[in-house]
Amino acid sequence: MIEPAATTFAGVTRVEEILPGRFTAEAHPEWTVGGKPNGGYLLAVLGRAAAGATGHHDVLAASGHFLRSPKPGPLEVAVEVLRTGRSASQVRARLQQDDTPCVEAVFTFGTLTADTEPYWNAGAPAPEGSGYAACERVTGPALGGTGPAIMDQVDLRIQPEDLGFGRGAPSGAGVLRGWLGLPGGADFDALSLLYAVDAFPPATLDITPTGWVPTLELTAYVRALPAPGPVRVRHEARLIEDGRVDEACYVWDGRDRLVAQATQLAGIRLEV
Amino acid sequence: MIEPAATTFAGVTRVEEILPGRFTAEAHPEWTVGGKPNGGYLLAVLGRAAAGATGHHDVLAASGHFLRSPKPGPLEVAVEVLRTGRSASQVRARLQQDDTPCVEAVFTFGTLTADTEPYWNAGAPAPEGSGYAACERVTGPALGGTGPAIMDQVDLRIQPEDLGFGRGAPSGAGVLRGWLGLPGGADFDALSLLYAVDAFPPATLDITPTGWVPTLELTAYVRALPAPGPVRVRHEARLIEDGRVDEACYVWDGRDRLVAQATQLAGIRLEV
Repeated sequence: MIEPAATTFAGVTRVEEILPGRFTAEAHPEWTVGGKPNGGYLLAVLGRAAAGATGHHDVLAASGHFLRSPKPGPLEVAVEVLRTGRSASQVRARLQQDDTPCVEAVFTFGTLTADTEPYWNAGAPAPEGSGYAACERVTGPALGGTGPAIMDQVDLRIQPEDLGFGRGAPSGAGVLRGWLGLPGGADFDALSLLYAVDAFPPATLDITPTGWVPTLELTAYVRALPAPGPVRVRHEARLIEDGRVDEACYVWDGRDRLVAQATQLAGIRLEV
Repeated sequence: MIEPAATTFAGVTRVEEILPGRFTAEAHPEWTVGGKPNGGYLLAVLGRAAAGATGHHDVLAASGHFLRSPKPGPLEVAVEVLRTGRSASQVRARLQQDDTPCVEAVFTFGTLTADTEPYWNAGAPAPEGSGYAACERVTGPALGGTGPAIMDQVDLRIQPEDLGFGRGAPSGAGVLRGWLGLPGGADFDALSLLYAVDAFPPATLDITPTGWVPTLELTAYVRALPAPGPVRVRHEARLIEDGRVDEACYVWDGRDRLVAQATQLAGIRLEV
């Protein structure tokens, strides 16, 4: 059973336009890992501010460069339309705190057609792993210390075989598979998928214990509108070299359709 | 044998700072496909302008949103430093033509250590396919019509099994493997790898004939400084749905080290 969450995704990503193209928002203390707001959550806040700037409302692509981690508290968002096109529009959004830039992101918006089917998907990974019920919910304390507060808000489940890192026995595969649900059982939409692609713990935990793995860049593509219900997630590490790691993330809806995919480049400090 | 090229990569990506943060450049007519400048080439031009803006000169991550295709001819580039940090800096660059925005890109710069070895690379694809000599050089005319002019500049080779599309017999795998060399046998560096990840024809050609596949977003990560000589490339399609396709590209140097990786989201018009 999932405890009632104190926050809602719509609530923690709320933006208010105070001047044309200028918004206020808030980094909620509950949506943090080690006191730092989750990067995908911040990208969704930026996306929400940017989504109303043109006639295209569905985010298709988002790329964010993470400059500094803001503290929980008030945020400022500046939005600038780069191009309004017939089938797609591009919008830049910058997240600041106390006039200091924290995240620079560019979004491509367009229209996601409801109930599309893939024309060809042989190049994409197939969903695999345990069902929702067979996965174990991960909470803040389970990840050690006081734990990431965000894990106590969302319904994040990892399949038992991929949880060896919690016992000091990572599998070495660098893959975390499981499911994700929003607080209160809220359904995902295109915007909240920007959070979904960055929700899981670092896949490097399944290789070696590391500390904070700060994201430098995160790019997400939203491919389809998700069906209601929790989404299936595969978060994987690919190459660790020269103090950096890239991770890929795939998100499928409950009907096994690939709805979002992402890559990120992050810094990593190895205990060698 | 490769014919002597009329252009050099250093020459076609040359930028000149005319005011602080303002550059002129030129989209060379030889570096086009169907008359439109190659996207990775434009990203490299932007990267060259941005690379001198901070104390960090190696591009680690680049994400470009493609608004409009510029015509061959003069370009304007505006560069703004977003953050100068200890180990990494971020710079935004915008490419315009006749005051019309064409490409918006954000770069993360840092330092690539020479001769690093992977700490862990089990999650990355392994280099595979034919050697340089066994691959066939692809020229403009080979791709039909007057062909992409850029293919007559660079030394782009695709292995025979992946060239079925030229005979109307795509393999269906959605993968093009081969090699890439710069004009005049020039060596790659971090910046020219931004071109390498977008140099190959659309991998969708190995699935179904399509026309122009315009890139909406391209994100590249440079992971290591490449060894001298041509680089090995794997360009693959992943999911085609709702009028869009995502492609992944991997680039290895001659020592089989993964030196760059990229994803792009592009529009695609299918003949159905």
